[in-house]
Amino acid sequence: MISEKMKELVKNSSTIRAMFEEGKRLSAIYGEENVFDYSLGNPNVEPPETIRKAISDILQEESPNYVHGYMNNSGYEDVREEIAKYINKKNGVNLNFGNIIMTCGAAGGLNIILKTILNPEDEVITFAPFFGEYANYVKNFDGKLVIVESEEKTFQPNIDALEKGITSKTKAIIINSPNNPTGVVYTEESIKRMAETLEKKQKEYGTRIFLISDEPYKEIAYDGVKVPFILNYYKNSFIGYSYSKSLSLPGERIGYIAVNPEVDDFKDVVSSLNVANRILGFVNAPSLFQRVIAKTLGAEVDVNIYKKNRDLLYNHLISLGFECVKPEGAFYLFPKALIENDKKFVEIGKKYNLLMVPGTSFGRPGYVRLSYCISYEKIVKSLDSFTKLAKECNEIINKNQ
Amino acid sequence: MISEKMKELVKNSSTIRAMFEEGKRLSAIYGEENVFDYSLGNPNVEPPETIRKAISDILQEESPNYVHGYMNNSGYEDVREEIAKYINKKNGVNLNFGNIIMTCGAAGGLNIILKTILNPEDEVITFAPFFGEYANYVKNFDGKLVIVESEEKTFQPNIDALEKGITSKTKAIIINSPNNPTGVVYTEESIKRMAETLEKKQKEYGTRIFLISDEPYKEIAYDGVKVPFILNYYKNSFIGYSYSKSLSLPGERIGYIAVNPEVDDFKDVVSSLNVANRILGFVNAPSLFQRVIAKTLGAEVDVNIYKKNRDLLYNHLISLGFECVKPEGAFYLFPKALIENDKKFVEIGKKYNLLMVPGTSFGRPGYVRLSYCISYEKIVKSLDSFTKLAKECNEIINKNQ
Repeated sequence: MISEKMKELVKNSSTIRAMFEEGKRLSAIYGEENVFDYSLGNPNVEPPETIRKAISDILQEESPNYVHGYMNNSGYEDVREEIAKYINKKNGVNLNFGNIIMTCGAAGGLNIILKTILNPEDEVITFAPFFGEYANYVKNFDGKLVIVESEEKTFQPNIDALEKGITSKTKAIIINSPNNPTGVVYTEESIKRMAETLEKKQKEYGTRIFLISDEPYKEIAYDGVKVPFILNYYKNSFIGYSYSKSLSLPGERIGYIAVNPEVDDFKDVVSSLNVANRILGFVNAPSLFQRVIAKTLGAEVDVNIYKKNRDLLYNHLISLGFECVKPEGAFYLFPKALIENDKKFVEIGKKYNLLMVPGTSFGRPGYVRLSYCISYEKIVKSLDSFTKLAKECNEIINKNQ
Repeated sequence: MISEKMKELVKNSSTIRAMFEEGKRLSAIYGEENVFDYSLGNPNVEPPETIRKAISDILQEESPNYVHGYMNNSGYEDVREEIAKYINKKNGVNLNFGNIIMTCGAAGGLNIILKTILNPEDEVITFAPFFGEYANYVKNFDGKLVIVESEEKTFQPNIDALEKGITSKTKAIIINSPNNPTGVVYTEESIKRMAETLEKKQKEYGTRIFLISDEPYKEIAYDGVKVPFILNYYKNSFIGYSYSKSLSLPGERIGYIAVNPEVDDFKDVVSSLNVANRILGFVNAPSLFQRVIAKTLGAEVDVNIYKKNRDLLYNHLISLGFECVKPEGAFYLFPKALIENDKKFVEIGKKYNLLMVPGTSFGRPGYVRLSYCISYEKIVKSLDSFTKLAKECNEIINKNQ
């Protein structure tokens, strides 16, 4: 009954559901407080208080037909202008409302970008490990996701691998920094080399290659690390931004696309994004939250809460002998599993009420992702489980030697 | 630079923008109060006051990470259960949360249904005149929209035409009642005959044909007319509902799909809708408004305001000699243009500051759509313009005789 394309996807989705059901099962037996769910990227830090106030003010001050009504498919012009100004101030650029399209989160943004640029069989490159949804988004428009590796020790993009991966059919590359699942922030050096490579390959093939920067974690960065502003480094670039994490509003589906003013065929590209937003069924980003964003620019969740979580969990894992790149952003750790088979490692974790996602789901077997966007107290309580997990793994390794 | 599929769409969209720009141009010259914009379906009746109160209560009572957080891609279970109960009470059926998927409006709902059921080249039937976006939604999944005519005098579905239009490749039929652009409500007799035809053809071809009922205007019905509840008439059916018009919240993108409990392969279909909601980039319907809906079930805008508008405009047009089916729902009139060429008729209207949409945009040339979701006062003020338009058209006709 269901379409051929969906059959495979429905089969895969049952794995996710199985994990979710496992969490419920364990909670029922041991109590929710004793189950350590590191599997979900659902922020636990509260949205800034300004959000509630902004909603209340808007409902008092503005006409409900305006606040909840239709607008241009790209969003309210005044909201887009405010966002452009904010970006300009932060990054020394010169955008205006015409560069901003309000979207249903970054997921909506990425889909309307891909709808705009992809013909069937076009190739889109991303670096493994990567957010698994990219494969689905590219398939939505009959493109092919081409996976190239990150640097082994740092999870920075491997530029040589990128260069080898580009063909005459390469239409775009998707990057994600701070990264899900590694938490790594791409350095300015990485971005510069990437841009040079793309420019070179564009010339070599006489094609256009778009750089799509998926930035839901842009604001979640620690230790004063700088996250490069992509539009400054490469002409044919888009930012797909989301307020899901910076304001802890993932359910509200609010974000934007920033289009580089120097993108080739700017006018057609922007018109197409506007139309794609409409015909894919988004129509427009949710209206009330567009207006909330304009009123709360600069507000951010307290990133130190995540940083404290990172330090606690990272230090404990290292003390147990885990290999792990110390992440500078997002709220994920991506350590090497203590045994080779990441799926088996995840299974063993469940014995100690630990829920983790195997690296295989991100195109990098042998690792696991831990989402530490849970309470500090829960992490403290979970440390003993990691110790036990490490002990069991060491016993397995010793037995096999 | 942009994809082949988008090129054509961007070209067409410039027509819509041209209309919008024309409105702005006329407003600048004559003042906004003297321009009669009957081109947009943006509700002017205020949302019920309960909406504002519900938002305020939710923000006071519930945790912000819950209200604005991720949930199952199909929506909050308690919200879906409340909606199911409300539907059950109104229609004497027996749905539960498992039959309801919360969506980004009906546009989002239709897209995830089509993603679920369509293979490339599959055919989807609709009745002309029809909401033009159906063509785009079907094309998103490489399906083919097959257009059959409505009954000439009533705009009820022409069941004989439907029967002839069905082939072995027909995967679905999309209906819309109360209808955009005609305002017509499909009678129970129409729905029964349609269901019989679909059942017969399913057997004849050994296929499954889904009935998709697009119902954003369900609650906007006048004179006590009954809008049949589709799930009661045909097994393989979906309702794509939206609160855009019943609550005047079109910008918030909130609606649901109701899946017939007797649909073939129910479990796979529902799983696929859930996955499609995620991978098309909707992820989930906006979270705060999901919770608002659960708190305001049964609330509706004051439909009498629209009815008063309809009566005023309809009676005036009839007095001028227009032919027009008297609509029983939605907020559109679809009269025959007074000259054969609907686009030329629309052009003449602009001389009198009237903005209308040519029937050609709805697959029915020779007609125009008038959206009367504007203020009563504005309609009163516009009547003279229609009189002048009719006069000019009569002169043209007389000259040509």
